[in-house]
Amino acid sequence: MRIGELSRRTGVPVPTIKYYVREGLLPAGQLTSPNQASYGEAHERRLRLIRALLDVGGLKVSAIGEVLAAVDDPGKSVHNVLGEATERITPTYGGGEPDEEAEAARRAVADLIERRGWRVGADYASAQALTAALAALGRAGHGAFAEVLDDYADAAERVARTDVDFVRRRVGLDDLVESVVVATVLGDAMLTSLRRMAHVDASARVFGAEGGSEGDSGRGFEGGSEKDSE
Amino acid sequence: MRIGELSRRTGVPVPTIKYYVREGLLPAGQLTSPNQASYGEAHERRLRLIRALLDVGGLKVSAIGEVLAAVDDPGKSVHNVLGEATERITPTYGGGEPDEEAEAARRAVADLIERRGWRVGADYASAQALTAALAALGRAGHGAFAEVLDDYADAAERVARTDVDFVRRRVGLDDLVESVVVATVLGDAMLTSLRRMAHVDASARVFGAEGGSEGDSGRGFEGGSEKDSE
Repeated sequence: MRIGELSRRTGVPVPTIKYYVREGLLPAGQLTSPNQASYGEAHERRLRLIRALLDVGGLKVSAIGEVLAAVDDPGKSVHNVLGEATERITPTYGGGEPDEEAEAARRAVADLIERRGWRVGADYASAQALTAALAALGRAGHGAFAEVLDDYADAAERVARTDVDFVRRRVGLDDLVESVVVATVLGDAMLTSLRRMAHVDASARVFGAEGGSEGDSGRGFEGGSEKDSE
Repeated sequence: MRIGELSRRTGVPVPTIKYYVREGLLPAGQLTSPNQASYGEAHERRLRLIRALLDVGGLKVSAIGEVLAAVDDPGKSVHNVLGEATERITPTYGGGEPDEEAEAARRAVADLIERRGWRVGADYASAQALTAALAALGRAGHGAFAEVLDDYADAAERVARTDVDFVRRRVGLDDLVESVVVATVLGDAMLTSLRRMAHVDASARVFGAEGGSEGDSGRGFEGGSEKDSE
């Protein structure tokens, strides 16, 4: 198909498609004349993947380029693609102030890794991101929240097992490596959304029944009051 | 303390502190002379909270302003603050194309909510974000990944229970409502980091142990590959 048709099918404007080609996110079409290129199903799919990573996954174009380069490298193993995808999409933190809180957070993360027996280095982007979050909690006077760490880690292990099982069942499929990226990036968005939905539900059950004033209406969340006690 | 001291203690530049005051994120200091204001411990703590929401939580200044307004409103119930915090920090999606995938995603989310018995409306920002993620998966040819939904929901419920228990134990403390915001926003960052750490571990165990060449090095992650089939 021509680029106009590709644009129509995916809703991505032609100049944007050309931009993705220039940035190496999308392979160039097959030239059918000096000024005309032809695009196929593979282009359409790749384009939809780019939009998913961009719109839902919240990745930057540069990060998508790096992640897709890992996907397209035939020498890459699943384990390495997963690793690269994870490193690329995890924001890096300058480490913040080298204060007590940072030191305590580093120790807490190292202890967690050892306690769980995780094969993860404390220098990985994800471990550093967790360290930054814990240090920020401490500095804001909410260090007590770190007590949830092991429950969160249980939940994270459960999700990781599910993801790896999903990817594993796809061994042999040609979209195996791509599915690793999808599971990593879009899985974040799905889990975050589900956590918030579950929050609303848990909050409605616990706080929705614990009395209090009817003063504020706001967004409502069941619109119910918390006037009646359990 | 003076604003210079507040800046020194928190690492936030003076013009930035003034900007937060103008935007209503931070209460103004107490005027001690026409050109001088005095700031206290509460300002310092609030400033650290703002930085945590900004740097680790990834919120925009405008979103932080709205969330903190909910925190500071004495008439708000915990349930409503949680709801507002959730709505404010969840990106909104235009809904994308009104295609088959969007329709299928909407059905899947409605079914999930019913199946779990969650007291959540399909019109909540979190439910819409999940719908957008599922629709994008479908469009990118990875609709099969939606099969993880219930495992993810189990994990989300576990985390939500932990969060609500944490907040509940703080009933009576004057930072109760603030802790709801912290748990919501920084908890996202913590869970995402933990999920990635657990991924690396699960991947090392499954794919790293499946034999194969040491061909690619890259970031490493246990260095294994999965060249040999099972």
